[in-house]
Amino acid sequence: MTEEATRNVRLTIEYEGTAYAGWQLQDDQPTVQAVVMMAIEKALGERVTVIGASRTDAGVHALGQVANFRTKSQMAAWKIAHALNAHLPDDVAVTAAADVPFEFHSQYAAKGKHYRYRVRNDRYRSAVDRAFVHLVRNGLNLEAMRESAKVLVGTHDFRAFATQIDAKKNTVRTMTRVEWSKDGPLLTLDVEGNGFLYNMIRTFAGTMLKIGGGAWPASQMAKILASKDRKQAGPVAPAKGLTLVEVNYGARG
Amino acid sequence: MTEEATRNVRLTIEYEGTAYAGWQLQDDQPTVQAVVMMAIEKALGERVTVIGASRTDAGVHALGQVANFRTKSQMAAWKIAHALNAHLPDDVAVTAAADVPFEFHSQYAAKGKHYRYRVRNDRYRSAVDRAFVHLVRNGLNLEAMRESAKVLVGTHDFRAFATQIDAKKNTVRTMTRVEWSKDGPLLTLDVEGNGFLYNMIRTFAGTMLKIGGGAWPASQMAKILASKDRKQAGPVAPAKGLTLVEVNYGARG
Repeated sequence: MTEEATRNVRLTIEYEGTAYAGWQLQDDQPTVQAVVMMAIEKALGERVTVIGASRTDAGVHALGQVANFRTKSQMAAWKIAHALNAHLPDDVAVTAAADVPFEFHSQYAAKGKHYRYRVRNDRYRSAVDRAFVHLVRNGLNLEAMRESAKVLVGTHDFRAFATQIDAKKNTVRTMTRVEWSKDGPLLTLDVEGNGFLYNMIRTFAGTMLKIGGGAWPASQMAKILASKDRKQAGPVAPAKGLTLVEVNYGARG
Repeated sequence: MTEEATRNVRLTIEYEGTAYAGWQLQDDQPTVQAVVMMAIEKALGERVTVIGASRTDAGVHALGQVANFRTKSQMAAWKIAHALNAHLPDDVAVTAAADVPFEFHSQYAAKGKHYRYRVRNDRYRSAVDRAFVHLVRNGLNLEAMRESAKVLVGTHDFRAFATQIDAKKNTVRTMTRVEWSKDGPLLTLDVEGNGFLYNMIRTFAGTMLKIGGGAWPASQMAKILASKDRKQAGPVAPAKGLTLVEVNYGARG
């Protein structure tokens, strides 16, 4: 006799993605989803499926990934968080846990996400931030990068910035923020939007680094966007610079 | 025939201290000084002594350690930095290199230093910052910590906060800044002063964490300082929370 799960628990998860082949389960490769499911099995004695809001890629980090799972456990949510942290590796941590309505689905309910891409623009590499920044040694023109970033704000067809995209897929998304900030040699790109195509943020970053490096004028961005042609955009910037900062669920999230 | 060193090179060095038994050379233990000397030997073909401004302890990090060494090499300073970075492990990086007067001594010439101690005050541990923050799960009274921090600013005999201190040693130092700031669950203690006794910053932190946790009132700090008795102060807070941010050499530095 198997009891039915009657409860839905939402987790906020932080991780350094360096050692993982991304969020999503894969055969024979370490993934964040796998270690979270393993920790739940150890802590609660149940094999469950954990649904993640974002399928972060290999090497991508998260400060605020959101996931949920259904369970029969009666353990208080805060105790579940502690128990999972005891079974998770050091580079993955549950930073919050809460009961949510049974029908809550962390991926489908997401209203928007906030990603951050970090570049260190310096002659020399760093040590402390090494897992979280993409090093660019050539001088970057931040003003040109900021100018091109503005083009991406709003509702557009972002097909030119998507990798391996089906021709029939709807590639229109809305970006509410595409913004560079600077702190010494560290350049940070904050991107907020209602949804993201595969490799989109990293292709934004790779394209703006082309512009910042002088290969293209800032005005090139509008042409790339209008082309809807992936071949016009810049390269996919390295995964290590990307962090999923937050998933937004609106007022009821 | 050995040529004499005719040149003095100053390095700014960033490191994550997790894997090291501190800055200072030790038999049979990995130290930052050892890996820097090894990198110089590989890059320049010379065995030199590298003088560090601060002998950071095992597990302590640095954003701006300063070191110098004398050399016969004629390589441009920026090329030395690149060559050293090519030979240093990932967790140690040279972030600047410059020619300085032959008599410059990174330790004796230092006018002051800036250290930072970071505490995560949360029920749950973190993943991304795990090597750089000390986790405190019990609630902390930041106002009491700030009040007690003010007592430490100024010129005082800090004997009560020094580990293993010779009775004859001068233990008077001047602190120009002892300040807590808060960013979400992260509490940061910035300390700037003209010199520091052994374990002093970590004992400041450990004492203020006692006060923040309610074990002692904020007014206890003045009594501890006046006692000049190490037994009155709190414990030495864990090394991983401490970072040497900057070494100051005054206007000519």
